[in-house]
Amino acid sequence: MTNNEASVHPLDQSVNLKPLEQGVWQGATSSAYANMVGPFGGTTGATLLKAVLCHQQLLGEPLALTVNFAAPVADGNFEVRARPLRTNRSSQHWWVEMMQEGEVVAFATAVTARRRETWTSTEANLPEVPLASDLTFFEKAGRPPWTRNYDMRFIDGELFGEPNKNEPSQSRLWMRDEPPRPLDFVSLAALCDAFFPRIYIRRPKLVPIGTVSLTTYFHADQQQLAAVGTDHILGVAWANHFGKGFSDQSAEVWSNDGTLLATTHQVVYFKE
Amino acid sequence: MTNNEASVHPLDQSVNLKPLEQGVWQGATSSAYANMVGPFGGTTGATLLKAVLCHQQLLGEPLALTVNFAAPVADGNFEVRARPLRTNRSSQHWWVEMMQEGEVVAFATAVTARRRETWTSTEANLPEVPLASDLTFFEKAGRPPWTRNYDMRFIDGELFGEPNKNEPSQSRLWMRDEPPRPLDFVSLAALCDAFFPRIYIRRPKLVPIGTVSLTTYFHADQQQLAAVGTDHILGVAWANHFGKGFSDQSAEVWSNDGTLLATTHQVVYFKE
Repeated sequence: MTNNEASVHPLDQSVNLKPLEQGVWQGATSSAYANMVGPFGGTTGATLLKAVLCHQQLLGEPLALTVNFAAPVADGNFEVRARPLRTNRSSQHWWVEMMQEGEVVAFATAVTARRRETWTSTEANLPEVPLASDLTFFEKAGRPPWTRNYDMRFIDGELFGEPNKNEPSQSRLWMRDEPPRPLDFVSLAALCDAFFPRIYIRRPKLVPIGTVSLTTYFHADQQQLAAVGTDHILGVAWANHFGKGFSDQSAEVWSNDGTLLATTHQVVYFKE
Repeated sequence: MTNNEASVHPLDQSVNLKPLEQGVWQGATSSAYANMVGPFGGTTGATLLKAVLCHQQLLGEPLALTVNFAAPVADGNFEVRARPLRTNRSSQHWWVEMMQEGEVVAFATAVTARRRETWTSTEANLPEVPLASDLTFFEKAGRPPWTRNYDMRFIDGELFGEPNKNEPSQSRLWMRDEPPRPLDFVSLAALCDAFFPRIYIRRPKLVPIGTVSLTTYFHADQQQLAAVGTDHILGVAWANHFGKGFSDQSAEVWSNDGTLLATTHQVVYFKE
């Protein structure tokens, strides 16, 4: 490792895109973010969002991102292509795809927008929870490599742990990048997929799973994310339904001063 | 109107697609589903889903649908194009677009899948509410034409009404197509966008709004939807956050026997 590489955060290495032509980049999966099979989906989604953020025609900041995991991403190189599908006065709709061997393995649609001050109200309730500094670290021994890039401190709903009595599919945890990295849209997009599959919270049984589609709504702008800096953020995730091979997940992500940064939803395949 | 047209439900007229070539159809907006400006977004999304359901290469049933409203849909004809982006053994990822004058006005990604019996658990709580038959009809005088195609009976959170004290952005209502029409994926997709904008529930003030992106997860299969028939379904919708020109909405849709049929999320532009 050169000094230069050493100074780059593992997340930024993982989502690094080398421009090939206008709207086309080359990237590669990162062993640091390996999952059980292939890369952690959070970095796949963050890479697709990064292509939008790198695009010369970008208008505004991320508002909505839907990532579809179409096929297993193989370890190694991939190509990312992004293009604006429609540009309005203050919003823009995007198409992004990740290709391997000429086939689409993941794709996303995104909306970016110029945000402006309006009436504001947060309706979701900020949970009352212990401070991150009063909680123990989640133990990563035996867990997939990607988990080592996150500092996770569970309040309840631990992986294969004792489910919360009233909300058996719910987890609440403080989390941040490890090593610490100032929060931005790229890292927040990845963090929104860093909740363990709800079925592993609900049932202490390891079965094959895979996120199929992930939607994130960003409620904060770049300035609000920058204000979080390297603080922990609070995640609250739960499932609404499991059945017929799929479950959903909804989650809120809060700053430690009580700003709702994002809400995120996904549908997940599970076996048995 | 011919006898033949008279026998077709207004929703089916609205989402009617005339095949032009493989994966390409012509449709037209329907005055019955007109909104304040352009057509009701629920029928736009339902039309995009219908193209997937009509496609010769369809595998399985709808699991996830994300509709992006890229630009105003003009009254009149449109073209719809659908193609599978990736077909796996038991799931399929779709791209669908609605074009007017050679420009994309709305697009969707969808996942269809073969569902199979697995462990099942509903984590969301079925609300205890009065029966539809014990509630009064929502009054449509002065409301946009599309509302006349729905029988809505509010428990609380009425349009420009008195907000629910504890959940001021929440609405709970029984709803169904009017005239009654057996529930299927097309009508359920439209119903998932039939909640009034949360800001009109939260604040008694008419401001310009528009759904930007709408994601629906279908938890029921065709057989379960058919079992609902023409019964009312229960919708529960709320916002998590309003601010900087946008708000989100999450909603649950339940059958009257307590089956969670779908969860649906959207991000909505609002002015002021």
